[in-house]
Amino acid sequence: MNWNEIDTYVKHWLEEAGNRITASFQNELNIETKSDRNDLVTNIDKETEQYFIKNIQSKFPDHHILGEEGYGEKLESMDGIVWIIDPIDGTVNFVHQQRNFVISIGIYQNGVGRLGYIYDVVQKELYSVEAGKGAFFNGTRLAPLEEPPLSDAIIGMNATWLLSNKLVPVENLHALVRDIRATRSYGSAALECIYVATGRTDAYLTMRLCPWDFAAGKIFIEELGGVVTDVFGNSLNMLEKSSVFACKPGLHKEILDNYLLRGISK
Amino acid sequence: MNWNEIDTYVKHWLEEAGNRITASFQNELNIETKSDRNDLVTNIDKETEQYFIKNIQSKFPDHHILGEEGYGEKLESMDGIVWIIDPIDGTVNFVHQQRNFVISIGIYQNGVGRLGYIYDVVQKELYSVEAGKGAFFNGTRLAPLEEPPLSDAIIGMNATWLLSNKLVPVENLHALVRDIRATRSYGSAALECIYVATGRTDAYLTMRLCPWDFAAGKIFIEELGGVVTDVFGNSLNMLEKSSVFACKPGLHKEILDNYLLRGISK
Repeated sequence: MNWNEIDTYVKHWLEEAGNRITASFQNELNIETKSDRNDLVTNIDKETEQYFIKNIQSKFPDHHILGEEGYGEKLESMDGIVWIIDPIDGTVNFVHQQRNFVISIGIYQNGVGRLGYIYDVVQKELYSVEAGKGAFFNGTRLAPLEEPPLSDAIIGMNATWLLSNKLVPVENLHALVRDIRATRSYGSAALECIYVATGRTDAYLTMRLCPWDFAAGKIFIEELGGVVTDVFGNSLNMLEKSSVFACKPGLHKEILDNYLLRGISK
Repeated sequence: MNWNEIDTYVKHWLEEAGNRITASFQNELNIETKSDRNDLVTNIDKETEQYFIKNIQSKFPDHHILGEEGYGEKLESMDGIVWIIDPIDGTVNFVHQQRNFVISIGIYQNGVGRLGYIYDVVQKELYSVEAGKGAFFNGTRLAPLEEPPLSDAIIGMNATWLLSNKLVPVENLHALVRDIRATRSYGSAALECIYVATGRTDAYLTMRLCPWDFAAGKIFIEELGGVVTDVFGNSLNMLEKSSVFACKPGLHKEILDNYLLRGISK
């Protein structure tokens, strides 16, 4: 597989898609509400996915595509080359803020992450990774993750999980929030993953994501020495919805053992 | 008072201070821990405040200065012209992320906000406001705030207040979080205020801030039609610590009446 060729095309497509998106801010956005009110879909979202699919199918006709907007395929396996695409990750931010959203692309070979791209369109910040060869922020190599003590940790976590959730007892999460330095919440799963990969936060914890939300971010975090599992420590299935706990390695085990799994019989 | 002259100087000083700060990222940061572990102080923080104080005292020797790092005066009144400065708002972000922090300057005349500046040093995003004459983002005029229904609102709020706080019953806050669209948490009070002023979020709610955290943001939000009070709806005292509830006008009353003050005898 010629990964360099794929890399060249993806970067070109990201730039072009990004320019279309920022140009669209001039126009009125045509917003539909999906089943969940937190999940807004815009015409730009759909157009961006279709733009990528058209280009991928044209250049790499034997590759498979899994995309948020559903113009890709219904995949039943990760065999071969699979592109997992979120054309606009952080749609609520996109609509409400016109910032803090990204294009997220993860490219897998037989289930193994090979290339990842997370592009902050507004700030023109491109994060890219090739598994085994390093991760980069606008071309500058990112350092391997260092581990803070738990008391210094900043964790990306949405406040709603502290009210109720079906997976982790809220009192365990409350104890975690009390014992760390701070929480943050940015409203885009891919951006939260990049914050972990760059060391801006130390972990990201969420109860329900789709594969396109974490497919790229997982490759970055693992390349830099982090660990990405569900909130029980299990491997993620790239074809299913899942909780996600992305974290620096020793801290991952510490938070799993002392908080997420405390009092839970798996 | 020649506000234009002050405006010209402040913008020049902000640019110069910003350049010093970004240059400092090359050097090792020398970090002390203040009394609260969440409140890191760096040499850069102190140097930046001293830079502003030196310049203000040189050009405007009869003005007063209130600053986070304590190199300003111990003020007992807001008489005359008072500069309220936070050289680096979002110190934890500054140290941990090297982004998502701002320089915040509010200039008051006899207790009335006149000029405000919030400068995102890393993204080179300058927000400025002159009361009665408009607020601007990198020179582009910001629109007056529009009001969303509560169910569409995004509120900036730190997750820790949902665990316990001394002011608002946590069950009231839980109900609020359930009824709105989403929460966000960025870790800089001034940045949270700018998010409200620009309509990126609809409100910002926090239980304990110092005047330099909200002095500039308050001027922006009020200029654009929003309301800034404490969490009980009282006016803020610019010389004291306070809770802060900054919000679009109708939504401000709705959230106060139905959530923050529910079941509370003031």
